Amino acid sequence: MQNGRERDYTAYLSERGNRAGDALITDPTASARYISFIYGFPDSDSLPAPSIIETTTQVLTDNPVWSLQYGAVNGPAPIREAILAKLARDQGIVASMDEILITAGSSQAIQLVVQLLCNPGDTIVAESPTFLGFFDDVTNSGATIAAVPVDDHGMRVDILEETLAGLKADGKRVSLIYVLPNFQNPTGVCTSEDRRQRIVDLASEYDTLIVEDDAYFDLRYDGKQLPTIYSLDHEGRTLYLGTLSKTLAAGFRIGWAVAPVSLIRRLAALKTDGGTNIFGSHIAAAWLPEHFQSHVSELRSIYGARRDLMLQALEKYMPEGSSWSVPEGGFFVWLTLPEGVDSGPMLAQARELGIEYLPGSACFFDHSGANAIRLSFSFAHDDVIDEGIRRLSGLVRSEMKETAPA
Amino acid sequence: MQNGRERDYTAYLSERGNRAGDALITDPTASARYISFIYGFPDSDSLPAPSIIETTTQVLTDNPVWSLQYGAVNGPAPIREAILAKLARDQGIVASMDEILITAGSSQAIQLVVQLLCNPGDTIVAESPTFLGFFDDVTNSGATIAAVPVDDHGMRVDILEETLAGLKADGKRVSLIYVLPNFQNPTGVCTSEDRRQRIVDLASEYDTLIVEDDAYFDLRYDGKQLPTIYSLDHEGRTLYLGTLSKTLAAGFRIGWAVAPVSLIRRLAALKTDGGTNIFGSHIAAAWLPEHFQSHVSELRSIYGARRDLMLQALEKYMPEGSSWSVPEGGFFVWLTLPEGVDSGPMLAQARELGIEYLPGSACFFDHSGANAIRLSFSFAHDDVIDEGIRRLSGLVRSEMKETAPA
Repeated sequence: MQNGRERDYTAYLSERGNRAGDALITDPTASARYISFIYGFPDSDSLPAPSIIETTTQVLTDNPVWSLQYGAVNGPAPIREAILAKLARDQGIVASMDEILITAGSSQAIQLVVQLLCNPGDTIVAESPTFLGFFDDVTNSGATIAAVPVDDHGMRVDILEETLAGLKADGKRVSLIYVLPNFQNPTGVCTSEDRRQRIVDLASEYDTLIVEDDAYFDLRYDGKQLPTIYSLDHEGRTLYLGTLSKTLAAGFRIGWAVAPVSLIRRLAALKTDGGTNIFGSHIAAAWLPEHFQSHVSELRSIYGARRDLMLQALEKYMPEGSSWSVPEGGFFVWLTLPEGVDSGPMLAQARELGIEYLPGSACFFDHSGANAIRLSFSFAHDDVIDEGIRRLSGLVRSEMKETAPA
Repeated sequence: MQNGRERDYTAYLSERGNRAGDALITDPTASARYISFIYGFPDSDSLPAPSIIETTTQVLTDNPVWSLQYGAVNGPAPIREAILAKLARDQGIVASMDEILITAGSSQAIQLVVQLLCNPGDTIVAESPTFLGFFDDVTNSGATIAAVPVDDHGMRVDILEETLAGLKADGKRVSLIYVLPNFQNPTGVCTSEDRRQRIVDLASEYDTLIVEDDAYFDLRYDGKQLPTIYSLDHEGRTLYLGTLSKTLAAGFRIGWAVAPVSLIRRLAALKTDGGTNIFGSHIAAAWLPEHFQSHVSELRSIYGARRDLMLQALEKYMPEGSSWSVPEGGFFVWLTLPEGVDSGPMLAQARELGIEYLPGSACFFDHSGANAIRLSFSFAHDDVIDEGIRRLSGLVRSEMKETAPA
């Protein structure tokens, strides 16, 4: 009770409102207190504040009106042009000005796509583990997830086929297949080209749509770029999502969906927010052609080196029975601990030791994965990664002693 | 068909997606071609680009990390603090840091509130005419609107009571009462204090909630400030929505909802977009204490004078049988034309004459109001308002001739 204002609102809420539950509202700035491996935060020191100051001054001087006025709900023309140019150059995705919608990060793109496609009772087929930010959208929609495991080459397409066949036999409506093909969040794994093609073929065979979430596309440190699922699909079944959060700045909250015009129009009708960060969109549109490529090149070198530091530290410290993924890009290493270690309750102790990580169970819709951990190597500074992993390994070893059979 | 990508997606869409329909995507910059009375756009010349350049430089110098990193989904602490301080000072609304959610304009606040409260088949009680940006949210939710007329003192509370009684008798679930008490969009009318109190009492008697949309609170040019519905309600039935779009800059896309903690937590769980414009939130948080009061004082003088110019021009030019509201604030004059004139089809001719306005029917959920027009006096420059209204009156007179009985 606060000022007599609180009441039991259950009966006033919609079904969606009741499904939503209470948000776990976290304060990202709290992570500055730890050697933090928990979130997919960009490296703080490389955030391009100087070039953003310069670009903001230029934009507000050259275009003081339309960078501060209302803008189109699908995004001002300059940002759509700048992102389409980037997608054509880097991703090989050629789309028109009506085939892109600017969103508040790719998070809002996911939210809108789930609203567009998913009814209560529908099934969404997703990698398991997968991006945890997607789960609230699934819960809010009333749909559920059919989990397809990931191995070192991405989504297990044999199990995908079995899953789709099983759902079809059960008469279930599959609203979409959700895939993160590059440096998957949380495993860091890339889906092989063969499997990308297979996912496209299975979507066609089982007549469903694909949502390709490609937040980390630009951050490849080794190996060769693979074709996007969007570019392998010639039947208009793929919605391609991306973001500037990992390359320009997460604080701009600028992402996008690329899809056929008729789907973009529907998504825009669901996006009743008056357009995303019009001010920041104009700044980003001016910043991208000038700074994107050189900045991303710098980021690759920073994150590639940091990944190496983390892999070296894991090698040096982690006890026998542990294993981890070796990502070619992105922000994450997926660490599997010896059976019996439960990374969830261990997090409080980790914070007492001055470190934090993401318990693996957060990345499974069914909260399995107790002995796994997602380690983000993007945010902690180079000089503390070894020490952070050393502390983590000490904690894991003491857990192993406690859980070992007597 | 574009690149073979288009298909008929009807069967793939959710019920919500199918209800949404295609967005009418408009480009705000197109209004620069006209003497434009159509949208609630702020005056372009007074957009505070210089102080925003200065504040951005300061924020990115002092706080280069957390203004560009991820931020809390309910808004970074500094913007919540700054808006709460403003609400306490100006609105007399005292709320805690957990009772406010930062949103993409008040548009997103409306979207989230409708999602939170409205099931398909529910009834929303709203003023008629009302804010057209609200209609897409209603349509998307599958709810419908029970329309309560507005007169010179706001919502007709006698008809509100009849409406609520009738809905109760019909066993209808009323999910909320939507009210714009100050300088209502589109009529410009203020709800009297007695009626505000009556709305609170009726919400209690019929056990429903109130959404108070107060986008224009700060822009009063005459008369005395009235208490917010939020402050008259002591039962936690009111969600209070506001925005910086009319005072700082629409392009920032920063608005808010103030409500009891448990509703804010639910709204935050529906707001799966990673937070609103974190970068702009930090700039706005620094700008507000420094510049808000002096800037708003300047805006009041600009808009107050412009309203007077429009009222003078209406007096000078409009034919007999026309009438219009005399707003004490906000952006809008509601013009009622002689019966038989249809302002909808007339818009194309108006644009040929170099002017534009909003047909009144856009502001009625049932598309009635053919002989009404919403005139925004905020965007057109002082020196063209007389000429714009002169052209409009010529057009109305020629329509009257055509529709006059022979």
